[in-house]
Amino acid sequence: MAILPQKVQIIPLGGLGEIGKNMTVIRFGDDIIVIDAGLMFPEDDMPGIDLVIPDISYLLDNKDLIRGIILTHGHEDHIGALPYVLKQLAVPVYGTRLTLGILEGLLKENNVSSNGLRSIRPGDEINLGSFIVGFIRVSHSIADAVGISIKTPIGTIVHTGDFKFDQTPVDGKATDFHKFAELGDQGVLVLLSDSTDAESPGFTKSEKTIGANFEEVFRNARERIIIATSSTNIHRIQQAVNIACKYKRKVAILGRSMTNVINIALELGYLNIAPGVMISPDEINKYPTSGVVILTTGSQGDQISPLSRIAMSEYRKIDIITGDTVIISANPIPGNEKSVSRTIDILFRQGAEVIYDKSSGAHVSGHASQEELKLMHNLIRPRFFVPIHGEYRHLIKHAKLAEELGMPKENIIVAENGHILEFTQDTGSFNGKITAGNVLVDGLGVGDVGNIVLRDRRQLAKDGILIVVITMDRQQGCLLAGPDFVSRGFVYVRESEQLMDEAKEKAKAALERCEVEGVTEWGMLKASVRDALGKYLYEKTRRRPMILPIIMEV
Amino acid sequence: MAILPQKVQIIPLGGLGEIGKNMTVIRFGDDIIVIDAGLMFPEDDMPGIDLVIPDISYLLDNKDLIRGIILTHGHEDHIGALPYVLKQLAVPVYGTRLTLGILEGLLKENNVSSNGLRSIRPGDEINLGSFIVGFIRVSHSIADAVGISIKTPIGTIVHTGDFKFDQTPVDGKATDFHKFAELGDQGVLVLLSDSTDAESPGFTKSEKTIGANFEEVFRNARERIIIATSSTNIHRIQQAVNIACKYKRKVAILGRSMTNVINIALELGYLNIAPGVMISPDEINKYPTSGVVILTTGSQGDQISPLSRIAMSEYRKIDIITGDTVIISANPIPGNEKSVSRTIDILFRQGAEVIYDKSSGAHVSGHASQEELKLMHNLIRPRFFVPIHGEYRHLIKHAKLAEELGMPKENIIVAENGHILEFTQDTGSFNGKITAGNVLVDGLGVGDVGNIVLRDRRQLAKDGILIVVITMDRQQGCLLAGPDFVSRGFVYVRESEQLMDEAKEKAKAALERCEVEGVTEWGMLKASVRDALGKYLYEKTRRRPMILPIIMEV
Repeated sequence: MAILPQKVQIIPLGGLGEIGKNMTVIRFGDDIIVIDAGLMFPEDDMPGIDLVIPDISYLLDNKDLIRGIILTHGHEDHIGALPYVLKQLAVPVYGTRLTLGILEGLLKENNVSSNGLRSIRPGDEINLGSFIVGFIRVSHSIADAVGISIKTPIGTIVHTGDFKFDQTPVDGKATDFHKFAELGDQGVLVLLSDSTDAESPGFTKSEKTIGANFEEVFRNARERIIIATSSTNIHRIQQAVNIACKYKRKVAILGRSMTNVINIALELGYLNIAPGVMISPDEINKYPTSGVVILTTGSQGDQISPLSRIAMSEYRKIDIITGDTVIISANPIPGNEKSVSRTIDILFRQGAEVIYDKSSGAHVSGHASQEELKLMHNLIRPRFFVPIHGEYRHLIKHAKLAEELGMPKENIIVAENGHILEFTQDTGSFNGKITAGNVLVDGLGVGDVGNIVLRDRRQLAKDGILIVVITMDRQQGCLLAGPDFVSRGFVYVRESEQLMDEAKEKAKAALERCEVEGVTEWGMLKASVRDALGKYLYEKTRRRPMILPIIMEV
Repeated sequence: MAILPQKVQIIPLGGLGEIGKNMTVIRFGDDIIVIDAGLMFPEDDMPGIDLVIPDISYLLDNKDLIRGIILTHGHEDHIGALPYVLKQLAVPVYGTRLTLGILEGLLKENNVSSNGLRSIRPGDEINLGSFIVGFIRVSHSIADAVGISIKTPIGTIVHTGDFKFDQTPVDGKATDFHKFAELGDQGVLVLLSDSTDAESPGFTKSEKTIGANFEEVFRNARERIIIATSSTNIHRIQQAVNIACKYKRKVAILGRSMTNVINIALELGYLNIAPGVMISPDEINKYPTSGVVILTTGSQGDQISPLSRIAMSEYRKIDIITGDTVIISANPIPGNEKSVSRTIDILFRQGAEVIYDKSSGAHVSGHASQEELKLMHNLIRPRFFVPIHGEYRHLIKHAKLAEELGMPKENIIVAENGHILEFTQDTGSFNGKITAGNVLVDGLGVGDVGNIVLRDRRQLAKDGILIVVITMDRQQGCLLAGPDFVSRGFVYVRESEQLMDEAKEKAKAALERCEVEGVTEWGMLKASVRDALGKYLYEKTRRRPMILPIIMEV
């Protein structure tokens, strides 16, 4: 009997063809490891949905094979699905200390046990089934991020995580060039690399440039300075605090998420703040306006963030004062452009000086630009390449970069979530699909809102609903009362009496036709009312409200 | 009796603090002229709304004083409200030939008469009441655009319209520098100037640069070329056609709006296409793929545009073939980023090469960047300056530019829609407010959807609706049937039977409590059911569907 060639499978469960819900399965024989378990924010066409997580049916079907979940860093699009995943899978979770610190907070909020968390350090290697998993320090817009090397019996896989090559990182700890070079030297079978910024030419700027730009602002500001940034950008927060000290301003933190992350980072030593620098939000108004810096979230225009609430004068502790300087230290996530610019406009209207645009240097990306992506390729020199983490066009751009670097086209695999990518020592190919996709989280419901509910919500949002209540006599099969109308989101009824009266006549006529024709079956009665009303209302209004006939029988 | 000082009033009705629905009123004594009457596309929080037009109550109240509506150019955000405005106001409308040609099509679609349209040419001056209105050629992303000079008895107002200083315009007709300089020499009281690109440093590139970049694409493309751009960008269409001729490709136009505009432009001589170049969409598949260019709309990701439908394989005449090149020759309008990138991703998935990003040079703006805005200021040297056409932050940026140029701060007025700005020869100040704002157009309804309907639509979109039908005995005041539930957009009922059953018990219990307590008033019965259900469902699902109790009495 011939020995079957050994194969490693890579199955992306999320993060391909989308920004968010990153999750990758790696399988060799009966051993599975999972890299990351992130969430994604809902698209415009998912009204009411709070967040989106990957469909993990494949993992539930292969529960016993999972040796662990490996985390690259503590951003929500890499760890945000874990409260849901860990409720269904009791497997160990490996990550750096800060990553696990942030995750622990998240699990606590969701009443999920943190017992399975296992802390590692960059440089560590651990054995998981037939894999040896190594953790490689990378720079990113959060501290303590790592790339992952996975040694399998048939070759090494390198997963970069989210990364950039910051030559002057704030904490002095650069991406581990040497380790990537060493892996490249030893030979890498497959490279999985972050494509988020594959459209950006050149190099991404160093996080340190932010410090210089912040300082420029501090030099010129007369009143308070408000810096809105991501709650997890420890290095940026560190720089803001350092400059605040230099300019003798006290620092207040607004917002639960940032307060939590800062506390964890302080506790674990990722953030250093001298005693006496921090003040509580309640103390802000006790200090002169020229002596305060406020750090907060809301750089994405989120309506319930402290920044938006301050802008709208809805925040108890603080209002914008003319002359305040607000730094929006972030780029809007695609889809958030409008809400971010709305916040900026309101802040300007309140009299603030707002520093926000790209030219202001108030933000740099945490992801590698094209030249850095090329550098990663040249360090790793992989046999096969699978671009991950990005919209489809980002994956395509990244694939083209690899081609430009001389990789044979057939060794570059642009995949989609759920594809099974199968690699031997010499070959890489698609081998079918597994179930993958979006699981929608709405309030406490996980997966209970599907396409039908969403389709209804979209229709309700567009043209509202018209409910037609009809009471029928059970014995006689004739109309006892109604049709009565109740509408919401369709027209303002008080100003549309004539329309509604005529519509009622149409509904009555439809019911009478049914009676004459001897139609008594409810489904047909309803359809008849729905058709007559739908046609009439569309003709009169060019709208298609959801029409819902309800028959009561007495 | 002292003679009152003569005043001119400028009242923006739209376009300030927003992109779109541009409309400005200028009043001197009993003479009113209106510049532009544009529409705006709805914001995210206006579900179901088709478009937004300015509230013209002020004009309706002063019908008899209006001497005319003056148009700067034929974009929708400058002429799109006219079908609605002209139904209510029978006043002459002045514009260049192309502007009126496009407007005529729009009016026809809406069954509005074009009798009041009066064609003018750049350089013309006309008398309207106490105003002398002059038309000044400007470059913009549509042909035949003008700025407006308005000579009033107390001084001249200059309204730039949308403009840029294109030094090498495609049709050789540059912005009329000399006229602006002459006006500046004679003295200008108020400058109203386009702020759309006030955030962009430097100069906006010439439209002609697009031609060179298109040509680069044509040189390399093997299969079909599809160019998606704005239907009204005649100069860009001209360049595409010219290059198509050079590379011996036939040109097909897809989409009603672009076909209409091209026909008008051909008829009026704004577009020159040699005979035999154009083919009908039905002929596309008769030509070799290397011999065809398709011009179409859809560069904003609009789902019903030909480009989106081609991408989705829903367009009858054409499918994407591997190797097709698609040029997205536009920048996404704020809010459209997601839909544009979705279209791009689908095109890539279909195997097209898509050229879209800023670095590709496939699009240039039609609006002046900072250095051009400064040039306009230096040519005009106005006494007072009012930034127009832009989000609030654009107006602020533009105001700051004016300050940098040495204008006294008190002579720069950042206003909002509805503000009455009053100018004498020496002073400029606010003098109250008039009614201004958004009128929402939904289907055939203009203004019948207001805040209440929108609030309902938003709630319905978020968590759906639960209808509770209860039949009561009129005589006894007791429950005859129900409560029965009908829900849409809340939960998938088939999978939520237990939840619905328990909710029904809660509703029943609430009704029984009412009976015990002798509560029979319908409003109170409904409130009691709503409260009990709302509380229960929020507890169980963390959702707040709209709960609509309906009582039938028999």
